Formats: sequence, C-alpha cells, structure tokens
Amino acid sequence: MRAHHRSFDELRPVTLKRDYLKHPDGSVLIEMGDTKVICTAMIEDKVPPFLKGTGKGWITSEYGMLPGSTQARKIRESTRGHIEGRTQEIQRIIGRTLRSVVDIAALGERTIWIDCDVIQADGGTRTASITGSFVALAIAISKLYERKKLERFPINNMVAAVSVGIVDGHPMLDLCYEEDARAQVDMNIAMTDDGRFVEIQGTGEASPFSREEMETLVGLGYKGIQELMVLQIDCLGGIADKIGKGK
Amino acid sequence: MRAHHRSFDELRPVTLKRDYLKHPDGSVLIEMGDTKVICTAMIEDKVPPFLKGTGKGWITSEYGMLPGSTQARKIRESTRGHIEGRTQEIQRIIGRTLRSVVDIAALGERTIWIDCDVIQADGGTRTASITGSFVALAIAISKLYERKKLERFPINNMVAAVSVGIVDGHPMLDLCYEEDARAQVDMNIAMTDDGRFVEIQGTGEASPFSREEMETLVGLGYKGIQELMVLQIDCLGGIADKIGKGK
Amino acid sequence: MRAHHRSFDELRPVTLKRDYLKHPDGSVLIEMGDTKVICTAMIEDKVPPFLKGTGKGWITSEYGMLPGSTQARKIRESTRGHIEGRTQEIQRIIGRTLRSVVDIAALGERTIWIDCDVIQADGGTRTASITGSFVALAIAISKLYERKKLERFPINNMVAAVSVGIVDGHPMLDLCYEEDARAQVDMNIAMTDDGRFVEIQGTGEASPFSREEMETLVGLGYKGIQELMVLQIDCLGGIADKIGKGK
Amino acid sequence: MRAHHRSFDELRPVTLKRDYLKHPDGSVLIEMGDTKVICTAMIEDKVPPFLKGTGKGWITSEYGMLPGSTQARKIRESTRGHIEGRTQEIQRIIGRTLRSVVDIAALGERTIWIDCDVIQADGGTRTASITGSFVALAIAISKLYERKKLERFPINNMVAAVSVGIVDGHPMLDLCYEEDARAQVDMNIAMTDDGRFVEIQGTGEASPFSREEMETLVGLGYKGIQELMVLQIDCLGGIADKIGKGK
Amino acid sequence: MRAHHRSFDELRPVTLKRDYLKHPDGSVLIEMGDTKVICTAMIEDKVPPFLKGTGKGWITSEYGMLPGSTQARKIRESTRGHIEGRTQEIQRIIGRTLRSVVDIAALGERTIWIDCDVIQADGGTRTASITGSFVALAIAISKLYERKKLERFPINNMVAAVSVGIVDGHPMLDLCYEEDARAQVDMNIAMTDDGRFVEIQGTGEASPFSREEMETLVGLGYKGIQELMVLQIDCLGGIADKIGKGK
Amino acid sequence: MRAHHRSFDELRPVTLKRDYLKHPDGSVLIEMGDTKVICTAMIEDKVPPFLKGTGKGWITSEYGMLPGSTQARKIRESTRGHIEGRTQEIQRIIGRTLRSVVDIAALGERTIWIDCDVIQADGGTRTASITGSFVALAIAISKLYERKKLERFPINNMVAAVSVGIVDGHPMLDLCYEEDARAQVDMNIAMTDDGRFVEIQGTGEASPFSREEMETLVGLGYKGIQELMVLQIDCLGGIADKIGKGK
Repeated sequence: MRAHHRSFDELRPVTLKRDYLKHPDGSVLIEMGDTKVICTAMIEDKVPPFLKGTGKGWITSEYGMLPGSTQARKIRESTRGHIEGRTQEIQRIIGRTLRSVVDIAALGERTIWIDCDVIQADGGTRTASITGSFVALAIAISKLYERKKLERFPINNMVAAVSVGIVDGHPMLDLCYEEDARAQVDMNIAMTDDGRFVEIQGTGEASPFSREEMETLVGLGYKGIQELMVLQIDCLGGIADKIGKGK
Repeated sequence: MRAHHRSFDELRPVTLKRDYLKHPDGSVLIEMGDTKVICTAMIEDKVPPFLKGTGKGWITSEYGMLPGSTQARKIRESTRGHIEGRTQEIQRIIGRTLRSVVDIAALGERTIWIDCDVIQADGGTRTASITGSFVALAIAISKLYERKKLERFPINNMVAAVSVGIVDGHPMLDLCYEEDARAQVDMNIAMTDDGRFVEIQGTGEASPFSREEMETLVGLGYKGIQELMVLQIDCLGGIADKIGKGK
Repeated sequence: MRAHHRSFDELRPVTLKRDYLKHPDGSVLIEMGDTKVICTAMIEDKVPPFLKGTGKGWITSEYGMLPGSTQARKIRESTRGHIEGRTQEIQRIIGRTLRSVVDIAALGERTIWIDCDVIQADGGTRTASITGSFVALAIAISKLYERKKLERFPINNMVAAVSVGIVDGHPMLDLCYEEDARAQVDMNIAMTDDGRFVEIQGTGEASPFSREEMETLVGLGYKGIQELMVLQIDCLGGIADKIGKGK
Repeated sequence: MRAHHRSFDELRPVTLKRDYLKHPDGSVLIEMGDTKVICTAMIEDKVPPFLKGTGKGWITSEYGMLPGSTQARKIRESTRGHIEGRTQEIQRIIGRTLRSVVDIAALGERTIWIDCDVIQADGGTRTASITGSFVALAIAISKLYERKKLERFPINNMVAAVSVGIVDGHPMLDLCYEEDARAQVDMNIAMTDDGRFVEIQGTGEASPFSREEMETLVGLGYKGIQELMVLQIDCLGGIADKIGKGK
Repeated sequence: MRAHHRSFDELRPVTLKRDYLKHPDGSVLIEMGDTKVICTAMIEDKVPPFLKGTGKGWITSEYGMLPGSTQARKIRESTRGHIEGRTQEIQRIIGRTLRSVVDIAALGERTIWIDCDVIQADGGTRTASITGSFVALAIAISKLYERKKLERFPINNMVAAVSVGIVDGHPMLDLCYEEDARAQVDMNIAMTDDGRFVEIQGTGEASPFSREEMETLVGLGYKGIQELMVLQIDCLGGIADKIGKGK
Repeated sequence: MRAHHRSFDELRPVTLKRDYLKHPDGSVLIEMGDTKVICTAMIEDKVPPFLKGTGKGWITSEYGMLPGSTQARKIRESTRGHIEGRTQEIQRIIGRTLRSVVDIAALGERTIWIDCDVIQADGGTRTASITGSFVALAIAISKLYERKKLERFPINNMVAAVSVGIVDGHPMLDLCYEEDARAQVDMNIAMTDDGRFVEIQGTGEASPFSREEMETLVGLGYKGIQELMVLQIDCLGGIADKIGKGK
C-alpha cells in the first residue's frame, strides 16, 4: 500500500486555485498531495530578437524552488550564482510543452512569461508545473482574446503532465518524493486532450527497462492525464470551450 | 482618505498564518493588506567559518520576490546573474534585526536560515518580512528548546517592523505600494517590545525632512509596531511567554 | 530519398577511431556522417563529496562544441559566461546513461571524467557522444582492470544511442542536421545490448505524436542501436568480451 | 579620553584637497583623521534607459576600497566576482543623498558618475565619501554651468554626512575604526545646510537604543555636519555662493 | 640529445592539413610533434561597435584547450566560470599578430573570427596557433577575394611564430612540453616573411638572461620561422602568391 | 621635441614616496610624470595549495585602475563582472618579474600580495607598477627580516621596468599616453641591476620592426632602467645594501 492509502494507479488529491495572485495575467496554485506550485502567466508586448518582425509570439518558462520548499534547505540559485542543470531542463520542457499546443503565429508579437515557483516539494514538481501553468496560460490568453487583441483563440489543445515510475518493481502513477527517491525507472509524460504525446522522458538510471514496462507506464500516464484534464476543465470554466475552436 | 478607508495612523489588515509549510522548522505566511510574504526558519548544525569553535550560533537571512509578485514581472535574480543592491540591503537588515534580540551565544554552533519570499508585493515587504520572520524564528528556536538542545531560551525581546512616510505632505503609517511610490520621505523602523530601536532608516530622496517630521514618523511607527506585536503574540501562543525569560 | 542515398531506416556511415589522443585513459573519435565527436575518459583518484567514504566511484560527463563545428559560429560558453541549458541537458543524459551500465560500487573511490567535444556537427551529436564515450569509458576501465586496481570488471552491459524522428510525416533513423531542423517529432533513445531502455526522450514540439508513431520510432531506434553495437564491439576488441562477466 | 585627545563631540582633523586628479570633471581627496577617500565626478552625455527622452539627468555613485586600505588586505571585488552587500548599500546611499539636493530636471540628459575610492580606511568611509563627493559634484556641475550648458545652477542645498554612535555607553561623534568596532549603536546621518535630514540610518545590532539616545546622537551629528560644511564652503570657494540660487 | 633525436636548432615534424572542417570559411589542423591545434577562420558581416561606420574590418581570436588535451585533465573554462589569464594573453597575442599583417581597411566592415582549439598539447600551442591560424585566415580571405567582395588582396605579409628557450643552459628551438617545463628562459617570437618582428615575448622567471643569450634565441627563432613559412606556402598553394600584391 | 621638453632618451620626472599608506607592510606612491600608482605589499602567513608543505613562499600581484584615473571614465572590473585580458596580462607580468629576483625558498610559507592601483594614468602604468612594487616588496621583506623571521635576506637582485617605443619613426624612452597611442612599436622591458632581462615584450601591431630597431629600443630601455634604479636605491636607503647579500 502507498502513502495516503493510494492504489498504484491513483493520483494524489489535486486542487487548482485560480487567480491566486493579483498582478499576473493568469495565475494558479496547483496542489498535488503535498506538492504546491504557484504558476503564473504574464504578457509582455515584445518578443525575443529571433522573432522580431515575424508577427509571431513566444512562450517561455522559468522554474524555481523556494529555499523552504524542501526537507534540506534548497540553496537559492541567485546565491549560488548559476542556474542548475536540472532547473534548465525543467524550464525547457515546460516551455516546449506549452508551445506545442498554442498557435504561436496567432499570438502576435507578444511573449508570455510562464513562472512556476515551488512553494512546497513532494515529488512531481515539473509535471505539476506543466499541468498548472497550462491553466494560467489559458487564462492569460483568454484575457487577450476578450480584449479583442487576437483574431482567433490560439490554443489548439489542452495539455497536462504526470510522472510515472517503477518502484520496488511495481509500476506506479504520480510518485511522491519518497517513492521517487527509490524508483528504478522514472518517466514524465505530457499529453494532449486527444491522447497524443507532447513529451516523454524516461530514464532507467538505476536499472534499464523493457519495452513491456514502458507500455505499462505509458498506460498509467494516460489514465492520470485524463483525470487531470477533468480538473483543468473545471478550473478553466468557459475558457475550456474555446480551446481548439480557433483552428 | 487612503485606500481601504484607512486613516493616516492605521495599519492595513494583518494576518499571520503559522506552520504554512511542512518542511521548515518554523514557517509563517504574513499578509499586510495585499502584501504576502512566506517567512521560514531552518536550522543547520554548523556555523560560518568566523564562528567555528566559538560555541556561538548565527542567524542569517535571504529575501526574494517571485516573478509574479509585482505589477511588471520581476526578473529572477538567478537569471540576472547577480543579486541586486536592494535585495542585499534588505537581507542584511533582516538578519541584523533578528540577531539583535537573540542571545547568539546561547544558540550553540547552529545557523538559523531565515528566508523571506514575497509572493505578492504591495509595499512594505521588508518590514513585513521582519515581523513575520521573527515569528518563524521563535517557532524554530522553541522546537530546539523543547528538544532540550538549548540550556536557556535565547530570545531576549520581541521585534517587529513597520514602514512610515510622508505622502503629499502627510505623515502616514504602513504605506502601500501606491503611497510609497509618491512619498517624499520613506522610513522603516524596527523596535523591540520595550520600545527601543533596533533599526531606523529614513530617506528623503525626494525632499529632506525636518527634526519635527522625524518625531512624528517615529511616533506613528511606535504605534504600528505595538499593534503588530499583539498579533505576533497571538500567533506564537505559549512561545511568547518564554521570550525574555532566558536572560 | 534522403541525403547520401540513405533509406529511412539506414544509419549514416559510422566509424570509431580508438586511442585518438595520447593523454586520456580512453579516447575515441566517433564519426556519424559529417558529425565528428572526440570522446575521452580520464580517471581521477577522488570522488565528489557526497560519495566520500562510501567506497563507490562516480562517472560524470561534460559536453562542448567547438566554435567552428557549426554553420554559424558557435559562441564559446566560456565567453558567454554560462553553460546553456541544452549543454547541461546533454551532459546529464550522457552521465546518467553511462552510469546505468556500470557497477559504481566496483569502481572504488574514483571519478571517471567523460568529455565529449564536437569537432563538427551535423545532427545527432548527443547520441554519437553516448555511443562513442561508452567505448572510451570501457577502454579506460579496462586499463584499471589490467592494472589489478579493480576486483571485478564493473561494466554490466553495453550501451549505445541513436536519434529517430518524424520528418515530413516519415519516421526516420539517425537524422542529419537538415532533417532534424524540419522534424515534427524528435526522439533520442539509449539502449543496452539486451534491448532495454536506459533513456528515451521524445518531443513533439512542432506536433504531438500518437502511440503508434512512438512504436514505429522505437523500432527504428532498436535497429540502429543493434548496428552501432556491432561497431562498438569491433572497436573494443577483447575488452567487449569482459562486459557483463563481472556480475 | 578618545584617541588623538578628542572630546566626545569633536571631529577628527578634516582636510579637503580640490582638483586632486587631472582627468575627472571634479575631484577631491578628503581626509578625516586617517581615513582618506578620493572622490571624483565625471560627466557623461547620456542617461540610463529609464530617463531617455525625459530631458532629465542622473547622478549615480560607485564606491570601492583599495586592497591596501585596510589592516587585513581587502580582497578586490573584481577578483571575488561580485559586489558585496555593504558596497551596494553604500553606493546606493551616496547616490540618493546627492540626488536629493540636485534639481535633476535642470541637469539635462547627462549622467554624473560619482566614484569614491577609499585609499586608507579608519572608520567613517561612507560619510566621508558623501561629504567629499558633494564637493566633487559641485565642481563638475559648476564647470557645466560656466560652459553655459545649464540654464540655471541646479544644486539647491549643500549636503554633508557624519557618523555618530554609542561606544562603551557614551554617545560620540565621528567614530574611528577602533571605536566603531566596539560600538553598541552605530548611526550615519546626512543633512542639508538648512538642517534637514536626507538620510538617517541607525542600527543597534549589539544593543537596541532608546528614543532619548537617538535624540543625543542626532544632536551630535548636527554639530559635526555644521562644522564639515564650513570646510566644504572653504574648499568650494565662489561655487558655494551659487548653491540654492537656481531655484 | 633531445627527444625524437632532434638537434637544438631543429623543429619537430610539422604538418598542416587544409580544410579540416566543413563549416568554417578557412580551417587547418596544425601538428607540431604531438601538439595538435584546429585553427578556423569564420567571417561575420559586422564589426565591433568601435568600428561601426568606419568601413574597416576586424580580426579577433579565441583560444581553448580540450579537457583531454593535457596530461592532467584541463578543467573547462565554461565550467570554471571565467577565462584564465593565460588564455586571455594568448588570445590577445594571436589577434594582434594576425592584424599586423592584414590591411584592416581593405577588409570592409567584416569581422574574421579566428578560433584555435588545442586537441592535444605538448608545448608550443600558442605559436602553433599563430602559424596555423595565419593559413586559415588566408584561406578565408581568399574566398572573399574570389567572390569579388574585396577590392584588393588585403594580406601584406606572411606571419608565423615559434617558441625558443634556454633549457639546462642550452638555447633550443621549438620546445616540447617536457623541455618547456624545465626551461630557465622562455621566448615566443612571431615574424613576417621579410624577417621583421611582430611580437617578441621573453621571460626569465627562473633566471634572467643576458643580451647575448637573447641574440642567440632570436637567431634560432628566425631559422625556425623561415622553415615554417615554407610549409605555410606549401599548404596555401596559389593563395601564397597573392600575399603582398594588394599593397 | 616631446611634451615637457624631453629629449627622446629622457625619462619623465620620477618620484617614489615611501610608506604612503599606514596598513600595508610596504607601500610606495610612484609618480612618472602624470602617471601615479600606489604600490603595496602585504604579507599573509599562508601559501596557495600548490605550495603547501614545501616550505616555499609565493609572490602574487593584482593591478587595478580607479574609474577617475583615465580621460574617459574607466568602468570598474567589479561592475563589469570580469577581469579584462589586459589586466590579467599586467598582473601576471608583475608577479613573474618580482618572483624572478626573490629566492622563494627563503621566504618561508608566506604569500606576499602586491597591489598596484593606478590613481592617475598617463602611459607606462605597468612598468611604473613594477618599479614601484619592487620597492614596496623590499620594504615588506625587510620588515620580516628585521623581525628575525627569515634566515637570510631573500632578494637577490633589484628589478625595474620601463617602456620604450617607436613613435613617428623615432625610438623613444618612457612613452606618455599620447605618444603610446600613436606608437608603431611598443615594448616593455624589465631588467635586473646587473643588466639582464627578466621580461621583454615587444609588439609591432601597427608595423613590424627590424632587428636593428629592436637593438636601439633595448639600449634605450637599459639607460632608463639604470636611472630608475638610482631612485629605487635612494628610496630604499639601507635596505638596498642587503640586496644580493643573502645568496
């Protein structure tokens, strides 16, 4: 039996609090068990140099952990003087995942800054960041759309993400920190609402995994993502209806 | 009339949520109006090199703002590659203020890391950080004391802080961002529970101020700090009784 | 038809030149088509702090590109002042992949530094780095073993890696730069000699991909990796026979 | 009795050498006892981005200590790789203090760079920097004015600064290093020639201080600043007469 | 007798491989004994700010060593976070040497980036870099000239460089690492094809040297450079004939 | 005729002020015309890691320019975030030059920190730094020797340095900034009191130079250094007599 009496294919309790902060264009506090991440989306009316004059927009992401979010105090990256490889990897995957479901050309020359800040960490912070920041992004884009700044609604699909892994030989959905720390295989999956992969990253550092094991893990991930999307839709309300209508 | 129908000598609504996070030894979410700061205290069983072998402890502080905490997105200091002067100034004042009321020699060779992370900024974040982190610190120290790690309770006084300033010619208590931005004089005061100053920092960049004006501001600050200490005591519960008893 | 008259499931011409440099304990120049990477392994008789006193060893990896390796001059990361996210991601995956097939506990308190330096880039540099550096690593470890520094041969499996992707709607093996640049789906796979996954990283930034497409890509990757391992064995000579015998 | 047979309310011997260096627009060597600081003002015909197009000017300040200025060699901040918090704090206060007495709008789109470099340190370097750099600034501005680049003389008031503190229970003016190191209370005050505060920063890290003690310290600071201004006027000669006439 | 049965005034075996890489405008692999350096020249159609609008071009150089190029692994400067003094010194001398023989005004507003990357180090890497990069530069410039981008051929002279030194009291040409490490005097000389000095840098850290010893060393350097120029001409083919004709 | 009515082989007026600062073990203000450099020597009772346990000492040097030392304000290297190549080159040459005349083994495990800070720059700052810091070094070492910390006096020779160059076709001694800026050839020479070279660095970036020209420049340098050493001896007083006696 897993902590919180979960079965192997069960998500932790998940909540999405909309409009958690007053300044950002979109903001969400996502909680998955004890993992808590503030996701914000802020619109800036310019784009990076490589997009200037193209009429296209950009979505970029940054990720951070508060010093008090982890068991042993997490040293600030500003104090450390550089951004860790793990952080960069996570930032890149969040940005890439969100861009994959947005029609960048329909955004206009705007950058949407996504920030995911982990208030409390208990495993799965990168996937929670994706799931939460998709909602923050949709809220921010929806405001642009309401203000008639966009010709069409530029989000083509929903996207959410979850972690899966093999722990003590058992495939499991949505690993908490303690499970993650002793997992043989660790996989993060991001999928759209029509069941296609945006990202899949699996690593068997502690022990390579077979094709059958991969199949099982992908199945668990699919199930978890379906459930997360129900919560996203709930949180988005009417905004959810516009997704995919702009194509 | 000020925003929220406050009079010139009135604090914004203040709340202190204890044990806001599960990992730190002490944690508090302080809200002063729309300003929200997570304050944590984490104990590490070693001291900086200059204290090794002295038997004394240390209290150090770091401060940060989430990118989504401000109107215009706040660039991460980790991305920027250096810590801004303003941040350093605030970190130094928080550490100094807390150390002034703790008997460092009675801590043993431990460092208490204080982290103040601004979730939402609306003026007065540095003084809210001091007021909140004193509570987080007292909780963490109290745990050490309960576990019989300390011979005596090493906190000699309570400390809290508040901002005051002159806005449109009127002295005011506890400035919100909009007031702060057009203040002629800006002052931060930290005081102990017996009414002595730990820090006073006043600046008249926009217009120098007279000795009489300083008197008025100090009086307002005194009033505000008294009120904040009532809330600190409330939040600390039985811990408050131990303060000053270890001398 | 692809460049160099390759069919969709064909590798580019691959060569592995052993002992390319005189100073490192192991060194290989791997060429996959026009992609050329120098892979070296150098042994240091100490470990990072987190392994001190454990008797275990460590394998760590760094990756770089020469300024002249790319079409547009690649700015040095030393000049830039920081290591890019992409580089960090690649370094982490190379290290993780190699560690997954080595019995770290049998290495003794040693660090093996793997360096992969791209002399010329034409797509697939990270997977070529893995395939080449496994050979450099095996040579270096073999020298330790010959010198009786190790009780048993600590490599449990061979490992190699290849890229696959969907280009113009067609799944393809071993993408060159020009194909990679217009791929809808991009996947890197690292596998052991018994056909298990060590790493799988797929991204559909330009367009999400279905489970069936993933199956096809994995199949192509499997085929490519089998072929690369024949070349690794060839290059390793007698060393290849010792792999897996130390278990 | 204090070192150099000073009484508690006496300044150390102070000298201001005008035109100490040939390249800057204004330069002064200020000596307060053994504390020696070179203060320079250099005019640049552009402003920081946030002032472009406003017609306003800017005054900014940097501060440094030579490695040989202190008892134990001061490590260069360039070698250290970052600017210390103390340095940033001092730079900010110097800039703010000087800007408070200058009509920035009358400067035109120019930046005046103030540099304060401590050649020899014996306490009170930040306040000596303010007192000396006001003179350097006035000389530089006077040259602009002589060359008919300014419509009116833009300095409204004189400003000078001094340190005060409580040492062994005694309030004292102008602390030398040895006194400063054992002070219970440490305060820096910057005032205009009409006796108003520009900056007041008091800290009781070693022991909080009462309102009465603050009064006494402020009185001492007032006395010292009056005396420093006599020397500033002496050094400035005819330039002093123009101050406040441009309003 | 020296290693490889060289006499005191003999170069190590030298080879220059032209067009070693496919992307750069000019590229050469130079080998001097076991020292191997990849030299590339890449043209960029813009100049540094200080040359904008002058019609003049620029030549700049960067130098690096692969981690596996040295006996003890060379830590990457990107990992180290800063560029070492030795590297900066070498980069500056390469750039200065090449610029001394090129008519910068005839290049047009272009920057030619010279990169020298040491694949294997055995002494004399900086002089090998100069000798090799002159060839890479001439190839790149020749391409511009062929494409009618230049009005005249802008290279006025050939340039090559070699190291000389005093080892165990004996003046020697072209020191390998082992000789260099125990040299009393170490000198690097760069000369043009008409026997004039572009750079001379001699240091007697271990022991000062007399004017007569300098004479001898300069004579050895002259001989070595003459021999290197024969190889440069050979490698350049028809390009060599154009040098000096554009004056 | 040169500025200040100097002939081509004449030094500018030179002064050396001993004990310019109170904290360092040795300090000198050297002025060569308008070039002014503070040179200090400070002793630290430890050595860099590579010398620990060898019983040998070390001499290391740092160099800086005050922002107000140059015509156009010199940006601080601490603000810039990195140390320029030119600075590193100068620091290395000063350290190397001083070490060449000191018996490092007789220093004991101590580091002598040499700091050269340019207060005002008018050409020749690196050679003035060498000439001045030799005196500061000798003073500091002499104090160690007086305190019976050294078995023998460890300075074997005096050393001084000067710049020479070819300006408008004329060889000249001790170039001021304005001459240096239009020099075709620029050479720095450091020599011992017995006329041997410690460093020679000549560059003909603007125009290569012949062997005859080098001879003439070396002769001028020799003359200038002889004259500088008379001033060094004068400044050192009795300390000068001990030099070379410890051998």
